[in-house]
Amino acid sequence: MTTAPKERVLLAYSGGLDTSCILAWLIDQGFEVLCYMANIGQEEDFEAAREKALKIGATKVFIEDLRKEFVEDLVWASVKANCLYEGVYYLGTSLARPVICRKQIEIAKAEGCQYVSHGCTGKGNDQVRFELGYYALHPGIKVIAPWRDPTFYERFPGRPALLEYAASKNIPVFQTAAKPWSTDENLYHISFEAGILEDPSVTPPKDMWKLTVDPEDAPNEPERIAIHFKNGIPVKVENKTDGQTVKTDALELFLYLNQLGRKHGVGRIDIVENRFIGIKSRGCYETPGGTILRHAHVDLEGLTLDREVRRLRDQYSQRLAEIIYNGLWYSAEREFIMASVDQSQGPVNGVVNVKLYKGNVIIEGRTSPSSLYDSKIASMDEAGGFNPSDSEGFIKIQSIRLKAYMAQKTGLQAGEF
Amino acid sequence: MTTAPKERVLLAYSGGLDTSCILAWLIDQGFEVLCYMANIGQEEDFEAAREKALKIGATKVFIEDLRKEFVEDLVWASVKANCLYEGVYYLGTSLARPVICRKQIEIAKAEGCQYVSHGCTGKGNDQVRFELGYYALHPGIKVIAPWRDPTFYERFPGRPALLEYAASKNIPVFQTAAKPWSTDENLYHISFEAGILEDPSVTPPKDMWKLTVDPEDAPNEPERIAIHFKNGIPVKVENKTDGQTVKTDALELFLYLNQLGRKHGVGRIDIVENRFIGIKSRGCYETPGGTILRHAHVDLEGLTLDREVRRLRDQYSQRLAEIIYNGLWYSAEREFIMASVDQSQGPVNGVVNVKLYKGNVIIEGRTSPSSLYDSKIASMDEAGGFNPSDSEGFIKIQSIRLKAYMAQKTGLQAGEF
Amino acid sequence: MTTAPKERVLLAYSGGLDTSCILAWLIDQGFEVLCYMANIGQEEDFEAAREKALKIGATKVFIEDLRKEFVEDLVWASVKANCLYEGVYYLGTSLARPVICRKQIEIAKAEGCQYVSHGCTGKGNDQVRFELGYYALHPGIKVIAPWRDPTFYERFPGRPALLEYAASKNIPVFQTAAKPWSTDENLYHISFEAGILEDPSVTPPKDMWKLTVDPEDAPNEPERIAIHFKNGIPVKVENKTDGQTVKTDALELFLYLNQLGRKHGVGRIDIVENRFIGIKSRGCYETPGGTILRHAHVDLEGLTLDREVRRLRDQYSQRLAEIIYNGLWYSAEREFIMASVDQSQGPVNGVVNVKLYKGNVIIEGRTSPSSLYDSKIASMDEAGGFNPSDSEGFIKIQSIRLKAYMAQKTGLQAGEF
Amino acid sequence: MTTAPKERVLLAYSGGLDTSCILAWLIDQGFEVLCYMANIGQEEDFEAAREKALKIGATKVFIEDLRKEFVEDLVWASVKANCLYEGVYYLGTSLARPVICRKQIEIAKAEGCQYVSHGCTGKGNDQVRFELGYYALHPGIKVIAPWRDPTFYERFPGRPALLEYAASKNIPVFQTAAKPWSTDENLYHISFEAGILEDPSVTPPKDMWKLTVDPEDAPNEPERIAIHFKNGIPVKVENKTDGQTVKTDALELFLYLNQLGRKHGVGRIDIVENRFIGIKSRGCYETPGGTILRHAHVDLEGLTLDREVRRLRDQYSQRLAEIIYNGLWYSAEREFIMASVDQSQGPVNGVVNVKLYKGNVIIEGRTSPSSLYDSKIASMDEAGGFNPSDSEGFIKIQSIRLKAYMAQKTGLQAGEF
Repeated sequence: MTTAPKERVLLAYSGGLDTSCILAWLIDQGFEVLCYMANIGQEEDFEAAREKALKIGATKVFIEDLRKEFVEDLVWASVKANCLYEGVYYLGTSLARPVICRKQIEIAKAEGCQYVSHGCTGKGNDQVRFELGYYALHPGIKVIAPWRDPTFYERFPGRPALLEYAASKNIPVFQTAAKPWSTDENLYHISFEAGILEDPSVTPPKDMWKLTVDPEDAPNEPERIAIHFKNGIPVKVENKTDGQTVKTDALELFLYLNQLGRKHGVGRIDIVENRFIGIKSRGCYETPGGTILRHAHVDLEGLTLDREVRRLRDQYSQRLAEIIYNGLWYSAEREFIMASVDQSQGPVNGVVNVKLYKGNVIIEGRTSPSSLYDSKIASMDEAGGFNPSDSEGFIKIQSIRLKAYMAQKTGLQAGEF
Repeated sequence: MTTAPKERVLLAYSGGLDTSCILAWLIDQGFEVLCYMANIGQEEDFEAAREKALKIGATKVFIEDLRKEFVEDLVWASVKANCLYEGVYYLGTSLARPVICRKQIEIAKAEGCQYVSHGCTGKGNDQVRFELGYYALHPGIKVIAPWRDPTFYERFPGRPALLEYAASKNIPVFQTAAKPWSTDENLYHISFEAGILEDPSVTPPKDMWKLTVDPEDAPNEPERIAIHFKNGIPVKVENKTDGQTVKTDALELFLYLNQLGRKHGVGRIDIVENRFIGIKSRGCYETPGGTILRHAHVDLEGLTLDREVRRLRDQYSQRLAEIIYNGLWYSAEREFIMASVDQSQGPVNGVVNVKLYKGNVIIEGRTSPSSLYDSKIASMDEAGGFNPSDSEGFIKIQSIRLKAYMAQKTGLQAGEF
Repeated sequence: MTTAPKERVLLAYSGGLDTSCILAWLIDQGFEVLCYMANIGQEEDFEAAREKALKIGATKVFIEDLRKEFVEDLVWASVKANCLYEGVYYLGTSLARPVICRKQIEIAKAEGCQYVSHGCTGKGNDQVRFELGYYALHPGIKVIAPWRDPTFYERFPGRPALLEYAASKNIPVFQTAAKPWSTDENLYHISFEAGILEDPSVTPPKDMWKLTVDPEDAPNEPERIAIHFKNGIPVKVENKTDGQTVKTDALELFLYLNQLGRKHGVGRIDIVENRFIGIKSRGCYETPGGTILRHAHVDLEGLTLDREVRRLRDQYSQRLAEIIYNGLWYSAEREFIMASVDQSQGPVNGVVNVKLYKGNVIIEGRTSPSSLYDSKIASMDEAGGFNPSDSEGFIKIQSIRLKAYMAQKTGLQAGEF
Repeated sequence: MTTAPKERVLLAYSGGLDTSCILAWLIDQGFEVLCYMANIGQEEDFEAAREKALKIGATKVFIEDLRKEFVEDLVWASVKANCLYEGVYYLGTSLARPVICRKQIEIAKAEGCQYVSHGCTGKGNDQVRFELGYYALHPGIKVIAPWRDPTFYERFPGRPALLEYAASKNIPVFQTAAKPWSTDENLYHISFEAGILEDPSVTPPKDMWKLTVDPEDAPNEPERIAIHFKNGIPVKVENKTDGQTVKTDALELFLYLNQLGRKHGVGRIDIVENRFIGIKSRGCYETPGGTILRHAHVDLEGLTLDREVRRLRDQYSQRLAEIIYNGLWYSAEREFIMASVDQSQGPVNGVVNVKLYKGNVIIEGRTSPSSLYDSKIASMDEAGGFNPSDSEGFIKIQSIRLKAYMAQKTGLQAGEF
């Protein structure tokens, strides 16, 4: 007598307590479970996690190094557009999701999985980001989100229930004392939320921060670097202080900026933000390299981007940040906006000199082979092919509309003033 | 035999070489000249300037303390809208112009002046800002802009010609060695441009900066303050470090924030910006108090402003910054945008805790009586009246559009995946 | 022995088969049901419906004439903003929902109902609009949406099941042969969708259209009217062809425009639109009076609205149309936008002359006491206080930026051309 | 003894009185003048004009047929973006200018002309459009605009002075009685302005309109066509009424739509618009083919364009219309916007059925091979792989934000309702 083959799930696995219990629970539900871990630069013992997953019962474990594509496909897009969500958040978690999704769906297709699963909670943004990615890339995929499934979350109402289940399944729990907040880390940033941070008036404790030193503990001596851009993307970082370090590979260059930012306490924020599902939440973030890059890129655009293009781009950057935050990377609207953004970056070439000092990213000058700056025209000391009486005409013409409006407002005709 | 009375000009006078020569030159042209100085918080010996103007031949000198209306009418508007021009510039010069214009026109009307005059150059933004203000507030006014008038600028092609003319008119020139840049100062900021700064690759010299200490020289100990807002406007600043200083008067409060920002090296920027007339120019700015306020206000909006209002407001803030930069404060479009901005600030009430340290403005927590943050709903640890399966429906509905687009892109029907 | 009082539901009742069955079914579920009908100008025998509801078992029936507040609160807001969803749809259904919701919640509160209910389907916009209105106005309210409840929709999978249930409950079904589409009607418009219209290539049959005559059957003689506006709102309509009809009351005036539009075949559209839930749907609409008003209002704004305000307002209007379409009338973002829109309408005063003819709304001229049009300045024949050389300066200044960009593009310096 | 060669001007020549006088006057000023006429579809006797120019003294006359590039490069761009200036104007004059400029500069370069010249007035848009095009395409070019040059306009203060000068130069004036308005015509449209139209309350006389019949005089029988689009551009027009006419060539197709629009009285408007220089002006326009195309293209986008792309594109389109109107076709911002617009048009493929009748363009259905419409999902009668309870989750999630705002507004906490 033959039995039907089990249905297959590809679980996004982290090695932690939650996804280990989800793994065991999915097996209990009768699924064959394959595990998938994306290396996006987080601090993690991937091989230990692999062993653990196999021990719990995963039939395969995929560990994928996605760091290079994360930097080149997502981080660089964000740098080109100067994306900041709500004017403050660098989108470190949001940017990682499309890369993780894409590989997960690729493996799910290759392995014939009918299902994918993840360990996200039911109140957060990540469930949305993962699942919109899954559905966009593979409309027929089915998703198991245990933390939204009453049969799961009612059985495991809190940490003790998970620990008890883990014990019953011989799932090892290598756990130091739990931190009173939760984190998400990748090479772009780390986030802190929940726990004691849920009170927005509480100052984060000094020992919470992980990717950067406290500006108060950073070196007393500044460090100077030059960042070279081509078509809006960083292509070289030189350390002007040590006079020798040079990085040109995308991943290495970015990790080096992280290292510098970390050392000088660059890139901490503490905000209350608006989740896609309409809830406000409080988060703290460290984005060392990303913060340095954004300052430098914005500065170089000052020199190289046409004024009106910059204004248009800034409007669409705000929208793009929302798109990315909301998990809509794989969407028509993202493609629409990126078409313009990419077009705009052609002239964004040159070098920006940056000083790092105790939390500050200080621009110290910039040059570009495709500069729009014309020192002769800009100069207050030279005529520069510029006829001052042109300005008079310009102003007079601009004033026509204002005069008409003021006449309207006061109920008088222009001639009556 | 009677002669016709002379035509009257009200000259915006600074006491410096340029406007002193303009004053003398206007008298030479047959005008009666009245002088006007606006005290907007710049460092200036107003009484010495008054004496000088009278000595040169001004028939009256008006010195007007506009600091309070500058803060309450302009700076507060900018704080409510979080205005930043091109994402970086705090608009310190632009914001002062409408206050200066308004009083100049008021006096011109009261004194029966047919003309107003100023000493702005023909390539800059200020000529535009002053004159659009003049024309909007008094459409019939006539403007004399000597630096755009060939009879003036051809006669005075450079500083030596002005000095010679000054000498011939017995105009005293109290001049220390000229700085290799020019500045514009008020209580909100100081700007540096021209001269050696015209090369955008040159790092500004350490001794150029005036309103702030170098972050490297700022105190090694941070200082903590609490800023209280009501309807988006700061109403109280408390020093938490000294435990006693409290400021509530608008002008005093703002000047106190300046003093703190100055001490801790807050608010320096160095940028290449786009002038209204389409020229790129390089400017350095110090905006100590304004920088602190913007960080705090943006943060409090995170807690109190509806997500969609914030997005709309952010779009119109970008536009408002352009309007202000371009000298269009007295315009229908500024009134249109401010109607929404003002409406949005009703709930922006509360306290933001801020740490100042060597150039950094660090938010350490915030509270509000009109917070939109609901810790029960936001909590990852509580159900909080939130049904996780609602999220599932939300995601599924969001995915419909994405699936359709992907089907379109791949040329397949959704059912065929 | 006492029993707990039944829980009370206030049902939005239409008198039709669906809501009659819902009424009976709610009673079956153990609720006390009160019925509510909003008179928003649809063709309906309200008293017959009242009798029917009472006969089925409603304990009370509220019939509310909301026509005046619909026109004054919603239609006028839409006229002021020139709202069109996706550039084509006049939002006739969307605009009625906030008025209906508001009264339903008012009655629910007064009558101590814990629940409200409606007969909307689970795929449409109206469920969203009603419920977002309910929740915004009364966050604690509970909603029963039978067409989303499996115990209801699985029991009534189609019309025959409803008819059978109706028969079993002695619910009279006064039904002529069902039309092969469904409609929603109010004084602003009628919509047609579903049924044979679900194929977007099908031309709607001539006998579908209800509120307007076919333009081909409209009078061969045009009719002329004058529409007077004050602060963006119509305050008088005069019939210039009959030379006597004048309407000034808001509701009468609007109904009169409907009558004229109907007669002349004005206001039909046939579109594919995007529902809030991400589905495309095909709808046909007739909006006779609204179409006339929009043409006239847009025209008058040409004469009276500042250029930059118009551009900003047009952006706000696109967003406002989405807000209204999506059922977000009772939201912070709608209040934000309306603050500016209302501000902008101060000068929108005057008279527009309109010719109606076989589907066309033809503007034949306009006047305004607060016009921004200055025939002397506009005239090609007069100098008009306008110095042509000002234009030269204006153009030269505008060209600076373009020249710099072209030099950048071609890799040459401006001087090298 | 040799003399320096004369400087060369390439004059945009129309054959009319103004540019004939300008031609003669330029020769009087000592220039060698070459004439240039662009055939952009206007009604004109080009050969007669050539003879006239040569007779007056032009050394060469270039007559260029730019109709095809006008349609393919400019009109199609406008169709893709649905451009309408201020929501009403089809930009018929504005769209022609970039094509005319481009060829004029091309010839000026080839012929070694240091100057170009035109006959535009000093108050209009066209001077701006021509000159910004000239400067962008050839930054070193010098422009002679006689109507802004006091030596010209003071010599020729009105028509009689021009006629007298023409007589003195033996310039033939073939002039029927001058119309009391001025026009600009090309294959896309004709404009009427000035003269009696300067009073915005005056109804244009019936005999003014030229490119279309009065809707009242149009055929009593409608005519039906099918317009096929590929990537947002019309590629075929079929006449369904005659059952045989088919056009596929871009220029022929467009001219055929003109012919149909003309016959059925399609595309008249009468507006007050805002010129770039801040003056309001009144214009009447006929755009027969363009009006038909826009209706069809907008309709097809309903079926094929993603909702969010459409919204973004509509914002871009409003801005693009301003760019084109203001003469900024050759600009960085136009390139930026078109990059996205072009990207969006990939799926805009299909056929729109259109009925033309007495001024109306009536959509009668549409189909597309790349439709986003899914009748199964849209259907109100089928479940269509759609779970109605998803909508419930969607609505509940949407309501979270609204409830929080209402709680804020009323000063109560959500739990207290």
